[in-house]
Amino acid sequence: MAVKGLGAIDKQYDGSKLRVGILHARWNKKIIDALVAGAVSKLKELGVQEENIIVESIPGSFELPYGSKLFVEKQKREGKPLDAIIPIGVLIKGSTMHFEYICDSVTHQIMKLNFELGLPVIFGVLTCLTDEQAEARAGLIEGKMHNHGEDWGAAAVEMAVKFN
Amino acid sequence: MAVKGLGAIDKQYDGSKLRVGILHARWNKKIIDALVAGAVSKLKELGVQEENIIVESIPGSFELPYGSKLFVEKQKREGKPLDAIIPIGVLIKGSTMHFEYICDSVTHQIMKLNFELGLPVIFGVLTCLTDEQAEARAGLIEGKMHNHGEDWGAAAVEMAVKFN
Amino acid sequence: MAVKGLGAIDKQYDGSKLRVGILHARWNKKIIDALVAGAVSKLKELGVQEENIIVESIPGSFELPYGSKLFVEKQKREGKPLDAIIPIGVLIKGSTMHFEYICDSVTHQIMKLNFELGLPVIFGVLTCLTDEQAEARAGLIEGKMHNHGEDWGAAAVEMAVKFN
Amino acid sequence: MAVKGLGAIDKQYDGSKLRVGILHARWNKKIIDALVAGAVSKLKELGVQEENIIVESIPGSFELPYGSKLFVEKQKREGKPLDAIIPIGVLIKGSTMHFEYICDSVTHQIMKLNFELGLPVIFGVLTCLTDEQAEARAGLIEGKMHNHGEDWGAAAVEMAVKFN
Amino acid sequence: MAVKGLGAIDKQYDGSKLRVGILHARWNKKIIDALVAGAVSKLKELGVQEENIIVESIPGSFELPYGSKLFVEKQKREGKPLDAIIPIGVLIKGSTMHFEYICDSVTHQIMKLNFELGLPVIFGVLTCLTDEQAEARAGLIEGKMHNHGEDWGAAAVEMAVKFN
Repeated sequence: MAVKGLGAIDKQYDGSKLRVGILHARWNKKIIDALVAGAVSKLKELGVQEENIIVESIPGSFELPYGSKLFVEKQKREGKPLDAIIPIGVLIKGSTMHFEYICDSVTHQIMKLNFELGLPVIFGVLTCLTDEQAEARAGLIEGKMHNHGEDWGAAAVEMAVKFN
Repeated sequence: MAVKGLGAIDKQYDGSKLRVGILHARWNKKIIDALVAGAVSKLKELGVQEENIIVESIPGSFELPYGSKLFVEKQKREGKPLDAIIPIGVLIKGSTMHFEYICDSVTHQIMKLNFELGLPVIFGVLTCLTDEQAEARAGLIEGKMHNHGEDWGAAAVEMAVKFN
Repeated sequence: MAVKGLGAIDKQYDGSKLRVGILHARWNKKIIDALVAGAVSKLKELGVQEENIIVESIPGSFELPYGSKLFVEKQKREGKPLDAIIPIGVLIKGSTMHFEYICDSVTHQIMKLNFELGLPVIFGVLTCLTDEQAEARAGLIEGKMHNHGEDWGAAAVEMAVKFN
Repeated sequence: MAVKGLGAIDKQYDGSKLRVGILHARWNKKIIDALVAGAVSKLKELGVQEENIIVESIPGSFELPYGSKLFVEKQKREGKPLDAIIPIGVLIKGSTMHFEYICDSVTHQIMKLNFELGLPVIFGVLTCLTDEQAEARAGLIEGKMHNHGEDWGAAAVEMAVKFN
Repeated sequence: MAVKGLGAIDKQYDGSKLRVGILHARWNKKIIDALVAGAVSKLKELGVQEENIIVESIPGSFELPYGSKLFVEKQKREGKPLDAIIPIGVLIKGSTMHFEYICDSVTHQIMKLNFELGLPVIFGVLTCLTDEQAEARAGLIEGKMHNHGEDWGAAAVEMAVKFN
């Protein structure tokens, strides 16, 4: 598995002038909390100011796409437009087919949302087969994997400034 | 499986000024009835007035998306616009591939419908492999699972008021 | 499997003022013929007049969505607009992946067609793994299942009048 | 498998006034060539004149949808608009998941292309698990199956004239 | 497997007047680098001038579609519009379902992007089950397969000039 892994970033991006929204589902709260913390921490590290990181929640991952749209519009209406949004959800396979249909529709709609909203919408959704897989990707199993929320924070900053 | 489960709601939402539509399929009636009752009961608990909960039916789940659009437009035409709609259906795997294609197209279209109608369209569709799975999620098997209709009612209220 | 089955219709719908189109593929002709007959018979039972049931064919199921659009437009152009359309096709799993890709794209496009054409487009497509499954759903195996064309006829009438 | 098979055409369609484009991928050339020849031969049999059958190629099946659009626009720009187009490709399962993602996205986009271009776009793509399956469907294995290109040619003529 | 393989190109296309963008993900860097080099080398071979090949990166494959749009718009804004773009990513199956959902949504959106941007968007994404499969397709395993980046470079030139 040596060739896998995220390549080094091409340069440091400056997030100091950005406003970034995080919209998270509330299912699987412990994992969600860790992912949100990871994203926030990376955003700050890249210069995004604490008052410019706005965190909001909706019930489940299916609400992430339309919730993101409502969230972005609300911030704009209030004169504080977002430069990027990170919808965060944790989906874990259960015994019905709910997991498959939610994962599929949410992923496709987050993809399209980038184009519909005209700002970067980062894919902050874990689609795991076991709880342990999700915990590992939230940095909750020591020595196993890093917190993927950090990647999402970095992607939000890069995508928001790179092509300006 | 300890980490699973819907996290506590961030705050109580007030549904007293909302009008919510429930459009349900008629296949698998016993389960549908329980889910509709669960949704209605939660809507009332959150303050939605009984005369503002409008329940209508269509034949099967495939009709849920377009039926929702017709339902929403009719209510608007009559001067009583809905603030959210909950399409409810129960799909259970059979021997052909009907289940897979219906689940997939219905889920995607309900997702898009949020954007097309400009109001929250909650995903009230069970996609189960067995009857028992569906009964459990409708709260019909004592001591097993709660009635998922309640979650849908709560999501409808939250999504309808949160970003105003 | 006791809970399965289409629930009783909420009320009788009157199709006497409707014009309904049936567009069927020609593959698997014997089964198609039975399904078309089932739909026609139910439409008549619900009051649709024989001269207002227009039956047309196209080669295969892939042509159903665009064919439906052309069919609807032609009827409108000739001053005899349709109130609903039932595309009917029978897809049976073969040895290549043709079945899967056709089923998937046809189902999604029929779903969208409701919205694009602005009239009910009923899902009259069987997606079966064996010939026997398709025959049973066309009412061709005595004592096994009813003719699903009847459900489609009933759905067309209900969807065309319910939200007016 | 007795009930399978394409039902007899409802009537003979006259292609003598049509211009039909064939856009084919170049992967799996031997099979492609046979399919193109089958389509051309059926088009001629139905009256399409040789100078009104325009054959063009692009590299692979992924290019079929956008290539079809460019092809149709070019013919229109030059005052020789097409009445139908047949994108032809042969996809065969390999060891990666390339086959699945290409088949799926190409099928969906060809479906939508009918609506986007406003003319019949026939699904001339084989999605096979083995080379032998593809050869058989191109009429290259004697006594096994007919050349599916013929079906596509017939569908193009029928769809181009039926609803006029 | 004798019938497989890319057929000979119909003619040599001249890329000397084209500007081509390459947008690559940074995951699986060694393989990405080889693919980008393969694409660049083929572009040059077909006459594209070095200063007209613009290479940019984004974090992961999910960012490829929206990143491509931002990249194309930026080049246009600066008066140096692109004639084609090659999004390059390497996705390798892991233990969660992340691979499947990313592959699916990225493939569909790259397909649609051709139509949305109005220029050829080549599918430069490997969707592999193992690292070795990806390395082979990047020409990194001697004597096994050629570098697929070359195919993408050739497709970009052909698609950009063929229908003008």
